[in-house]
Order: sequence, then C-alpha cells, then structure tokens
Amino acid sequence: MLIHSPEKEDILAASERISKYVHRTPVLTSRSINAIIGCSIYFKCENFQKIGAFKARGAVNAALSLTPSQRKHGIATHSSGNHAQAIAYAASILGKKAYIVMPENAPPIKIAAIKGYGAEVIFCKPTLEARERGLERVVQQTNSYFIHPYNDYSVIAGQSTAALETFQNVPDLDYLFTPVGGGGLLSGSLISRNYFSPQTRVFAGEPAGADDAFRSLQKGEIVPSIKPNTIADGLLTSLGDKTFKIIRENIEEIILVNDEQIIVAMRLLWERMKIIVEPSGAVPLAALLGEKDRFPGKKIGIILSGGNVDLGKNYFN
Amino acid sequence: MLIHSPEKEDILAASERISKYVHRTPVLTSRSINAIIGCSIYFKCENFQKIGAFKARGAVNAALSLTPSQRKHGIATHSSGNHAQAIAYAASILGKKAYIVMPENAPPIKIAAIKGYGAEVIFCKPTLEARERGLERVVQQTNSYFIHPYNDYSVIAGQSTAALETFQNVPDLDYLFTPVGGGGLLSGSLISRNYFSPQTRVFAGEPAGADDAFRSLQKGEIVPSIKPNTIADGLLTSLGDKTFKIIRENIEEIILVNDEQIIVAMRLLWERMKIIVEPSGAVPLAALLGEKDRFPGKKIGIILSGGNVDLGKNYFN
Repeated sequence: MLIHSPEKEDILAASERISKYVHRTPVLTSRSINAIIGCSIYFKCENFQKIGAFKARGAVNAALSLTPSQRKHGIATHSSGNHAQAIAYAASILGKKAYIVMPENAPPIKIAAIKGYGAEVIFCKPTLEARERGLERVVQQTNSYFIHPYNDYSVIAGQSTAALETFQNVPDLDYLFTPVGGGGLLSGSLISRNYFSPQTRVFAGEPAGADDAFRSLQKGEIVPSIKPNTIADGLLTSLGDKTFKIIRENIEEIILVNDEQIIVAMRLLWERMKIIVEPSGAVPLAALLGEKDRFPGKKIGIILSGGNVDLGKNYFN
Repeated sequence: MLIHSPEKEDILAASERISKYVHRTPVLTSRSINAIIGCSIYFKCENFQKIGAFKARGAVNAALSLTPSQRKHGIATHSSGNHAQAIAYAASILGKKAYIVMPENAPPIKIAAIKGYGAEVIFCKPTLEARERGLERVVQQTNSYFIHPYNDYSVIAGQSTAALETFQNVPDLDYLFTPVGGGGLLSGSLISRNYFSPQTRVFAGEPAGADDAFRSLQKGEIVPSIKPNTIADGLLTSLGDKTFKIIRENIEEIILVNDEQIIVAMRLLWERMKIIVEPSGAVPLAALLGEKDRFPGKKIGIILSGGNVDLGKNYFN
C-alpha cells in the first residue's frame, strides 16, 4: 500500500495494475448539451465502469497492492454504496473473501449484488458508529484487511486513473469538473492534473445539503458532514485528512448545487445522451450549468462518477 | 426515390448518402447479460442515434433521395412518434419545411422536440382516419412530399444500414434480432442480411398485444393491427405491402412477448448497461430471453431501436 501522496509513477503503476480488471470507459460528447451550456464538454463515463462506478478503480488498485500476508485473510470495509460493491469485486479478483459491514436497512438489490460477488455481508444498525464498531469486530475476528473508501493513498491513486484517461483522450482541457464526497475521486483527479495536464483547472460540484468540503475549505480544517440531506447519496461522507490536504492545496473552487439542480442535470444526461447517471454523478454537470456564463466556449471534462440508481424510484416526477 | 426493393448497391448508396447526417452507433456488449442468457450478444445502439432512434436513417435517406422538384415544397408525414422527429430532422438537412400531422393529445415534450427542428405541427383528432385525412389536406395545400414511415423502399434502404453496420462490426453473427412494428427496420435488416451476412438467421420480437405481423405471416396476408395494446408504443402499426412481402420471404420467425417480458428486458438494459432503451427497443431482447434455451453459446446481434422514453413515467414500479 502507498504510504505517501501518489506521484507520477504511482499513478502510472496503478493504471497498469488495474488495466485488466477495469474498463477504459469512453469519453462521450453531446451536441445538444454543448449548445445549452455553450462549451465543449467531454463526459468521462464511469457509469459504464465495472460495478457501475469509478470506485472499482481505487478498490482494485488497493487490493492488488496488498502484500501476500496483508491479503491472506481477505479484505473488509463498511459501506452501503458503490465502495462495498467495489471491494467485493476486488476480493473476487484476489480470490479472497470480502467482508462488508452494511446497515440493516440497505436496499435488498445492493445486498444481492454484493453477495453475487461471493462477499459476506455483516449487518449492523444504520449509524456510522455501529458501522465502525461492526467493522472493527469483523477485522478482529477474521484478520481481514480494512480498505478505507477514500482516505487511503492506494485508493486515491486508483481513482486518479479516471482523470488520467480523460487527459489522454482530450489533451487540452481548460477545466475538469468532478463531484466531491469523501474526496477520493477529487484528490486523485487533482494529482493527475498536476502531472498530466497542468494547464487544466479543477472544479468540484458538491450538494448544498452535504457541503462539508466547501465549509472545510473555507475554515481551513475538516468540518464533518453532520446530518447531510441530499438526493446525491454517494456524497454524504466527510473528507479525510489525506484527501483534504490534497484538495486544499490544489483545487480551484467548489460550487454548491441544490437537489433541484442535480435533477435537472441528471435529466439532461438521461434525455439527451440516453445514458443512466446517478444523482451524485450528475452533480458536476449541475455545478457547471449553474455557473455556465463563467466558461463560454471552454473545453471542459466532466467525470460522470456512477450510474447506480434505484430504478424503482421516479426521479423526474 | 427507390421504386424497387433495395439491392446491394442501394444499401451501400444509402449508407454513403446518410453518413454525414446520422451516427455510426456503437455495438456494445455486456458480460452480465451474456451470463444470464448464455450467448454472446452484440447490441447495436440505435438509442444513441440522431433523434434517439433508427428512424433518422430512413427519413434522411428518403429525403436526400428526392429530386429537386419533389423536395421543393418540403416534406410531410403523420406520426406521433420517432418518425415525426426523423422527418423534422431530415427536412432541416434539406433546408426545407416539414409538416407533421400529430394527434392533439401527443405529449408536449414530443411536440416541442419537433418544433425545435423548425417543423410545422398540424393537430388532428387521435384516430388513424383523422391523421390520414389531415395529412392529405396538408399535402394538397402545401405541395409537400409525403414520406411514409415504413412502406417506402427508400426508407427501407435507410433502415437497412443499421444491420449493415452491425454485420461490418461483427462479421460472423449466427442470429440477428430486431423488433417489428410497421416492418421498416425488419425488412431492411433482412435485405442487408441477404447481401452482407447470408449465414445469419433473422428473428423479430413482437408485442403479443400488437401481434399483427405474427398473424399476417400465419395467414399469408396482411392482418391489420386493430386496437393494439402494449407498452411498446413504437410497434402499434400494421405492416405495409412492401414490408410484408420482404418479411414473408426472408424471416426465420417472429417471437411474441408480453408487456411484463418487455419490462424485464428493458430493466436489464437500464440496470446492467446503464443505457436508456425505450420499451419497443427492448422487445427483441425480451424475445431472446423468452426462448434463450434455443440459442446456447450463439453469437447474436440485437438492434436496440430507440431510447425515447417518457421520463415522467415509472416503468419499473
């Protein structure tokens, strides 16, 4: 596992290491969305990624970076979202067991997907405290290795490869927009930018109902996410010390968006591009839409972080 | 305009003629859907086509095939669906007016999309008779040229290019599945198969609630579609004499599916591939799913005909 902030070689090594196990996702464009916003937008489609989200990159890179003794007894995490599936998938690549601590009210379809990779699901009460205690107990009992969803340099190096590929496909981007939750994708994108596309300025979109990263930047220290409330259920977590430091030193700006803006952006993607993007994945487009007059005619990359939605829910009614 | 069933050169000419104005859509695969069905499936993504459906191919080919005097006063059709948008788009390429006769209860979003191409919308009562009379009146008044949605050899030649591209991408398909409504896409696919992939057998999926093509084949003559009732709203029309003849002479089999099967197939596409396919576009996958034991290990092309859904509606609840 990496014990320092990823450098150029670490990003390239991660890209090589995970290449057999994750998709090199396409970069798509939409004339009608370009016309609406007045820019040239390049959408990096991580909604088409393995397990339906960029999280596969970080989990697979971290799992493959474990020494034989670290991986011997499997890997573990607590999550009700995309990281849980990513860890289950990564463990299946190692040929090891995954232990996933999940809140007992997690959607049955997510539980089934995780079990589908052969992972063991351990249920707990739906509080962060119960999840952390549940994970501690599982790790003690099984000697499995805990892979944090974002505050881990190997995970960050894995996530950085999405931006790397975007820069490889579109060499002269003026801006790159990502969402920010725990900060794994954003900090990875910032590091990739530093090495592979230094002229690109990086913005993040964040839900106003979970604006801990915005407030952390303002205050200069991590402000935890307390009672977040947003439709973007992948962006509820707080920054970690590793992701906060990278973000603080490198980001251009965080733009806040409300749920209504997120739905408008999501609908544009579904309707004009016929692709399914989850609310969290539509946040950077919502941010750009909200401030579009600042970016006339620019070349802008947007990472569509995932496509795992609840199809039983109607987002547009 | 073509006055005989399209031959090899007509298909290639159509492909060349429309190439600047329609997308060469991607052919996608899904490991998880392959695992569920036990075949290797190649999805031709016409949901990503201009105007969101394969209909752009036929309309553009027909419009560009008009002589200067035929196109002089614009083009016209009656439709509440994808053909209406396709004709509006084709007219914008010609730099001519499009006249679209639509039922007065057509969804506002479709009306707006058609007007967005600069077309003139003429409303009528929501019956086939009223639509045909409305169209007759418009053509008389404007001298515009009527382009039929499917029973037209230039339209059929245009639609045949979707299968042509599929065969070019995947040279050794065992089977090709398409939906069947009026039969434009199916008859075009059959003709393409004859010239470019003769070993491929062609199946069509048809909604049980609009099974006029199935019954027409059984009876050996066109059985009109009377009070069709299915969620696949693009497949309500009856065959025409031109499409019926081609289908009758060339098809392997039509497989009927009910609305429940269509929803299951549609959900698979949305959930596993993160792409939006309309109910009509999911019909061939539903047909394959229903009879999957007949095709073990085969290489199968499926044309996903369109992606224009009503996002205000919840299909999966």
